[in-house]
Amino acid sequence: MKEINAGVRIKEIVPAVSNNGDIIAAKVDGVPVDLDRPLSKDCSLEWISLNSPEGLDILRHSTAHLMAHAVQTLFPGTQVTIGPTIEDGFYYDFKRDESFSPEEIEKIEARMSELAAKNLKISREEMPRGKAIEFFRRLGEDYKVEILEDIPDETVSLYREGDWVDLCRGPHVPSTGVIRAYKLTGVAGAYWRGDEKNEMLQRIYGTSWSTREQLESYLRRLEEARKRDHRKLGAELGLFMVSDVIGPGLPIWLPKGAVVRSILERYIVDLERSVGYQHVYTPQLARVDLYKRSGHWDHFKDNMYPPMRFEDKEELVLRPMNCPHHIMIFQHELHSYRDLPLRLAELGTMYRYERSGVLSGLSRVRAMTLNDAHIFCTPDQIQTETVGVLRLIEQVYRNFGFKDYWYRLSLRDPNDKTKFVDNDEMWNNAERCLRQALSEVGVSYEVGAGEAAYYGPKIDVQLRDVLGHSETLSTVQLDFYLPERFGLEYVDRDGYRKRPVMIHRGVISTMERMMAFLIEHYAGNFPLWLAPVQIRVMTVTDAHQEYGRKVYEELRASGWRVELDARNEKLGYKIREAQLAKIPYAVVIGDREVKDQTVSPRRRGGEKMEPSSVADFAEALTQEIARELQGRPI
Amino acid sequence: MKEINAGVRIKEIVPAVSNNGDIIAAKVDGVPVDLDRPLSKDCSLEWISLNSPEGLDILRHSTAHLMAHAVQTLFPGTQVTIGPTIEDGFYYDFKRDESFSPEEIEKIEARMSELAAKNLKISREEMPRGKAIEFFRRLGEDYKVEILEDIPDETVSLYREGDWVDLCRGPHVPSTGVIRAYKLTGVAGAYWRGDEKNEMLQRIYGTSWSTREQLESYLRRLEEARKRDHRKLGAELGLFMVSDVIGPGLPIWLPKGAVVRSILERYIVDLERSVGYQHVYTPQLARVDLYKRSGHWDHFKDNMYPPMRFEDKEELVLRPMNCPHHIMIFQHELHSYRDLPLRLAELGTMYRYERSGVLSGLSRVRAMTLNDAHIFCTPDQIQTETVGVLRLIEQVYRNFGFKDYWYRLSLRDPNDKTKFVDNDEMWNNAERCLRQALSEVGVSYEVGAGEAAYYGPKIDVQLRDVLGHSETLSTVQLDFYLPERFGLEYVDRDGYRKRPVMIHRGVISTMERMMAFLIEHYAGNFPLWLAPVQIRVMTVTDAHQEYGRKVYEELRASGWRVELDARNEKLGYKIREAQLAKIPYAVVIGDREVKDQTVSPRRRGGEKMEPSSVADFAEALTQEIARELQGRPI
Repeated sequence: MKEINAGVRIKEIVPAVSNNGDIIAAKVDGVPVDLDRPLSKDCSLEWISLNSPEGLDILRHSTAHLMAHAVQTLFPGTQVTIGPTIEDGFYYDFKRDESFSPEEIEKIEARMSELAAKNLKISREEMPRGKAIEFFRRLGEDYKVEILEDIPDETVSLYREGDWVDLCRGPHVPSTGVIRAYKLTGVAGAYWRGDEKNEMLQRIYGTSWSTREQLESYLRRLEEARKRDHRKLGAELGLFMVSDVIGPGLPIWLPKGAVVRSILERYIVDLERSVGYQHVYTPQLARVDLYKRSGHWDHFKDNMYPPMRFEDKEELVLRPMNCPHHIMIFQHELHSYRDLPLRLAELGTMYRYERSGVLSGLSRVRAMTLNDAHIFCTPDQIQTETVGVLRLIEQVYRNFGFKDYWYRLSLRDPNDKTKFVDNDEMWNNAERCLRQALSEVGVSYEVGAGEAAYYGPKIDVQLRDVLGHSETLSTVQLDFYLPERFGLEYVDRDGYRKRPVMIHRGVISTMERMMAFLIEHYAGNFPLWLAPVQIRVMTVTDAHQEYGRKVYEELRASGWRVELDARNEKLGYKIREAQLAKIPYAVVIGDREVKDQTVSPRRRGGEKMEPSSVADFAEALTQEIARELQGRPI
Repeated sequence: MKEINAGVRIKEIVPAVSNNGDIIAAKVDGVPVDLDRPLSKDCSLEWISLNSPEGLDILRHSTAHLMAHAVQTLFPGTQVTIGPTIEDGFYYDFKRDESFSPEEIEKIEARMSELAAKNLKISREEMPRGKAIEFFRRLGEDYKVEILEDIPDETVSLYREGDWVDLCRGPHVPSTGVIRAYKLTGVAGAYWRGDEKNEMLQRIYGTSWSTREQLESYLRRLEEARKRDHRKLGAELGLFMVSDVIGPGLPIWLPKGAVVRSILERYIVDLERSVGYQHVYTPQLARVDLYKRSGHWDHFKDNMYPPMRFEDKEELVLRPMNCPHHIMIFQHELHSYRDLPLRLAELGTMYRYERSGVLSGLSRVRAMTLNDAHIFCTPDQIQTETVGVLRLIEQVYRNFGFKDYWYRLSLRDPNDKTKFVDNDEMWNNAERCLRQALSEVGVSYEVGAGEAAYYGPKIDVQLRDVLGHSETLSTVQLDFYLPERFGLEYVDRDGYRKRPVMIHRGVISTMERMMAFLIEHYAGNFPLWLAPVQIRVMTVTDAHQEYGRKVYEELRASGWRVELDARNEKLGYKIREAQLAKIPYAVVIGDREVKDQTVSPRRRGGEKMEPSSVADFAEALTQEIARELQGRPI
């Protein structure tokens, strides 16, 4: 508790020293505000430092303003539209006919430096909506006028820095001098309000940080991410393609990518079978009625493909999820408690309608094949089944070499139960089971209160990607709702019919997202067990062709994925090409190898191995794969 | 050459003795006619004996008449519609509100015997169409009237036997006494003119043969086919199901069927990869434009699903064939002659719209996954590539134990080239290549002149099914049309761009048809390598549970598909259940096995094997599978 006079501005009471560096805003009763805001009544007050997540977000928003300010002074007649923050940065969309050239971007950055150096005060001003409309109309800012006409507020706020002004909710940093470490990172076209029917705007992306060091570290990560971008590597390594004739968001797995996918599929199917899952194949479409029954039609229709109406009145739709199909299998027979848990799994292809603007390589697509499974079990089995799934996840992550990941337990909001299916006993039992399962497997986890799905609590596994962002790869979701909705039953030991619980779980996500993730995780350097081509045999001269071919055939016959490069090219060139293709082993065949009937392998990184017989080399590779897959039960 | 007087009826010159048994009709200038027909001018004359394919077809048509005759005398007011012959038999559709009961079918058969015993003369009568319409209208035969109103002929023919008459083109056997060996085999509902919008009729199926022996042999085959019917066995063995909620023609592969399918898939993919195919995954749908380009939209639209139109004007359609997708992959890069042959393969799921009336189990479905491949090659490579495919087919058929099959080479009609793509040189080269390929592989073949596809000649492999009917399982089709239509090119050795040839080929057909065929071929007794469950371990009493479980775990850990039956049931009951489930091996665990640490296996047929260690038993199974798959290169 601290007592201050009404009307005192927050900045007047900022502590001189803070642990978290510069204080650039505050939270009054939980709401972020400018430091310039006067305090008028009793309130709670928290400081927002520049380097906190909220502080960085405000900084990036102010940097977006600074950029728009620079753009409008450099290119008069360019209109502003919106400029939000995004992860690690911001963008601003401008109405301008031409896109911004690299030279213009440099000019904008230079002008931003000048404006930042002036340390212009950033000040808030409130205005009745009608007056603001007139104000922006006079400025010729048609988009701001349109935004204002669409909002219900009676009073709106404007932010000024120097003679530049923007419509904005705020808050902002106190002055432009705080903006010290930023960089414009890209340009793109974007439709006004994201709608393809509207006019095209010019978007500039940027990033902003509290220190130069942070900015540089981020730019290095960004550069690494660009090198690893699965779309770039996917094309370079011949893994997949997208065809405009076939359609956007519908990637095609080229032979090399398809090899990796089929290894992934067999790996997970075999592993799941070994721990008691039963795989099925179900059609990728169903009568619309199925989704009316499941509730997807009412709640998920916008993400579904349009239904297909046949002459005979049949109405089918591509499925957005696999669960209802598995429920039909469960309902096909009457089950006893002895049949449970029933673990139905499928590499299930599903279809989601995504706007073309958000589609991207393999990571945002319109058709995807999920490593899906549904466990039908009694409420008593929730814990052991969850433990089983968590162990499977741990096993898989070991095999893929994932280390930077963590668990998140999402529970219902104890203060607002209305957003969740109403079954207190279930929720309490489930929460206890999930917590105990996490302890049993011995992993730590964070809790997200209120983050559960409507139908039950869940555990997500978060992995960190190349940019340091977190991504959900695996998930275990309890569901008390669909069993109820479909009236699922089993006959219990006591002869009574009871309601099973459903567990939706995915371990390696969709084949598409997993592949995108793996390409970036490995930077295209797939481990030996996954590499589309494992070995390239290369001859030094034509004199080595015969033995080279023999080695190639020998390796191929024992099941290795091997290529032969017997072209009439320099060895150095051949080795370089194999490295660019990120093939784990280049096997050189020259005079010595022919004479000794050996091979001289080099690892992808360049390391030369001792010459050995083909059999010994193959044995070494087998050992390497065994190490990669250690801990797999089969 | 034989001279006879004009006006003589054919029956007056029938030779007294013929090699082919009774003569029941004749062909005048190639057209089948009744024996009662007078000859009016010079003509060629061939005899049709009862036991020839054409004779049996006429007999069956006359049997359909005899049945309709019986039905109308037994059930006055029942109207006749149509009664064609089908493979091995016939049916007749009647307008009657109730379906025919088994007792009524018996009555009909009895009445047919009476009418046959009377040896009624079957005589033809010609009538102007208008008069015939009046005639049938007076009889109250509305469907005959409707048929007559739709046909353009000025004169129509009626056939009478006794006082019964039917509108019919004929020809027929001379009298009902010829009909000696027949059986009514089933009843079903059927829509008038096959259209679901029309009223439902009652269909009776029957079969008819020249002798009782032939009939009985056929009925035995029919009985065997019923026992092997994949729909019946598929349900009994838990291989697949169909759900009304999901939709007809969209089968669901239950866990046991899915095991077989995934073995089939891995088998063929591995085999294809070992002989140089590159597998891909492509989306199961595409923009409608793709099929406009390929020509499917114009020529195949009726068999396609309706397109899906999205809000943003995107228009996608489920694919009816995989070829255009593979063409897009070919076109993704510029190819040199060095890249050819390029063999792109896929387990490609496709969608065909079939009327609900023709859907059946796994054999006629609306979604299917084809073992598909497209070979892009130079015209010079047609022969070696065809040899490669034929060798692959021979290999696969050996592994599946198929013995009753033959090759059919379909060529264009040399007298009517208009129905075929115009490229004489291509056709001549292709025919020569295909013939040489068949000789090189050393298989004999029949030739179907005029049976080629529009786009090129083909080789089909015909298998005989349980009923003795032939079915096409594998196919190799040359295509000179799509490469032209899509403008496919490769750069030849001489630097010029040339047009490749495409070979469409399928070895194990769709997973659905192959599974249907295999279930019936093996009568559910899958060979060890394909069996969904290979071994069932069963304990004699509870005292053997511990060791039984150990044996089960040991077999399971070494990758065998094994179940444990440790229930408290009699051993005989457990063995019988394992036999009904058609599991190749039942492994009995009793006192002696526990004491000696052995197992006592019995084969599916009942044969007991010597007790052995688990390891020796497993080794014997490994040997058995090696024998089943002998000749596989991997």
